Amino acid sequence: MKKAVVLLSGGLDSTTVLYWAKKRRYQIFPLAFDYGQRHAKKELCAARKIARLNELNLKVLQISLPWKGSSLIDKSYPLPQVSSEKDIGGSIPSTYVPGRNLILLAFAFSYAESINASLILIGANSIDFSGYPDCRPQFYRLLNRLAQIGTKAGCEGQRIQVITPLIYFSKANIVRLGKKLKVPFRFTWSCYAGKKDPCGKCDSCLLRGRGFAEAGIKDPCAPLK
Amino acid sequence: MKKAVVLLSGGLDSTTVLYWAKKRRYQIFPLAFDYGQRHAKKELCAARKIARLNELNLKVLQISLPWKGSSLIDKSYPLPQVSSEKDIGGSIPSTYVPGRNLILLAFAFSYAESINASLILIGANSIDFSGYPDCRPQFYRLLNRLAQIGTKAGCEGQRIQVITPLIYFSKANIVRLGKKLKVPFRFTWSCYAGKKDPCGKCDSCLLRGRGFAEAGIKDPCAPLK
Repeated sequence: MKKAVVLLSGGLDSTTVLYWAKKRRYQIFPLAFDYGQRHAKKELCAARKIARLNELNLKVLQISLPWKGSSLIDKSYPLPQVSSEKDIGGSIPSTYVPGRNLILLAFAFSYAESINASLILIGANSIDFSGYPDCRPQFYRLLNRLAQIGTKAGCEGQRIQVITPLIYFSKANIVRLGKKLKVPFRFTWSCYAGKKDPCGKCDSCLLRGRGFAEAGIKDPCAPLK
Repeated sequence: MKKAVVLLSGGLDSTTVLYWAKKRRYQIFPLAFDYGQRHAKKELCAARKIARLNELNLKVLQISLPWKGSSLIDKSYPLPQVSSEKDIGGSIPSTYVPGRNLILLAFAFSYAESINASLILIGANSIDFSGYPDCRPQFYRLLNRLAQIGTKAGCEGQRIQVITPLIYFSKANIVRLGKKLKVPFRFTWSCYAGKKDPCGKCDSCLLRGRGFAEAGIKDPCAPLK
C-alpha cells in the first residue's frame, strides 16, 4: 500500500486528487496550510470536512509569510475582480503568493520523508488556471529531480515523487472526473474572498463556474445570482 | 546596490557569508528560522547579536515541523557523539532534518521576491561538511533553475539566484576568510546541543574545532577541555 501525502486545500482540484488517490487505494496523509490566505478559515473548514468524511487525519501547518505584495495574503491589496473570462490566465495575477507552491511542497517533502511516503499529490493544473508559474508541468519535473538529489530518501534510492494528476485537465474535465469519483462537491470551497458565500467574481469562482457549466453539471455551491 | 537575503543562523559559516556580502556592499536582509532545532535559543541569540552589530533588521520565522526522525529537532533521539573525525561525512547523520534546506530556501525565495532582491546567500559547504544532501553544489544549481521557472520574478526576467560563496571551502579556509573579513568569531554559535557551553562532541563542534586548528587560529568559543 503506497503512502501518499495529499496537499488538501478543500477546493475542487485538491479534493478531486484526494478521491483519485483513494480510488488507487493509496494510504493517504492529507496536509493543509494556514499561510494567512484570505480564505483560510473557509478552506480549512472544507479540508477538515473532506478529511473527516474519509476518516483521514488532516495535518494543518501554520506558516507565517510576513511580507507584502500578494492580494491573497495582504488585505491592503484589493482582490482582483475578473470582469470577463479573457482576464484569466493572461498574466500572473496579484493573487500570486511569492514562492508559495515551493514552500508548501518543501513541507510536503519533509513530511513524506519522515513517514517514508513515496508520493506527494497536488491538484495543480495548467490548462484552465490563473497563470501561476508554479502550476506548470516543467516546475514539477524539475522539482522531482531536485528532491531526488536533495533528500536523504532520494540519495538512498527511495524516491519521493510529486504527482500532478490534473496537470493537463481543463476545469470541465476536473469536474467530470470529480463526478465519476463521487467527490462531494457541496463540501468543497474555491472562492478567494472567504466570506459566507462564494463571491462569484474572483478568478477562482469564475474558473470553477466555467468548469461546471462546460461539464453540464450543477455546482451545489454556485454563487447566488 | 544589490539586495541580498542572507540565511543567518549565527554560526561560523552563515556569519562569514554575511561579512562576505557586506564587503561587496550588498544591501543585506538577514533571515533566521526557529524550526524547533535543539540549539534554537543559542543560534537565534547569536544571529541577533550579529545582526545588531551590523545594524541590520533580522527577520525570524517560526516553522513547525511536527514530525519525528531527526535528532536535531526530536529530543527523543540522542544527538550523535562523534568519537573521531572519520565519523563525519561518511553517511548522512541523524541530525539531518528532512527537506530542511529546501524549506528554508523556499521561504528565502518568497522573501526575496517580495522585496525585489536578486540574491539569496547561504553558507552551505560541501568539503568539510556533515554529509547532508542539501549542501551539495548540484542541489543549488538545480534549485536556481527551479526558481527561475517557478517564480513570477523569474518569469519576468528578474532572476533571483542562490549563491553559495563557501561551497568549495574547507572549514579551515572558512576560518581564514572569516578572519580576513573581521568576523567576530566570539559571537558565533555552532554547537548542536545548545547548552550553556559548546559540547565539543557533536559533528558541528568537531568540524569547527578542526577548522580553527588547521587554520592555526584560536577559536574564542572553543569548548573547555
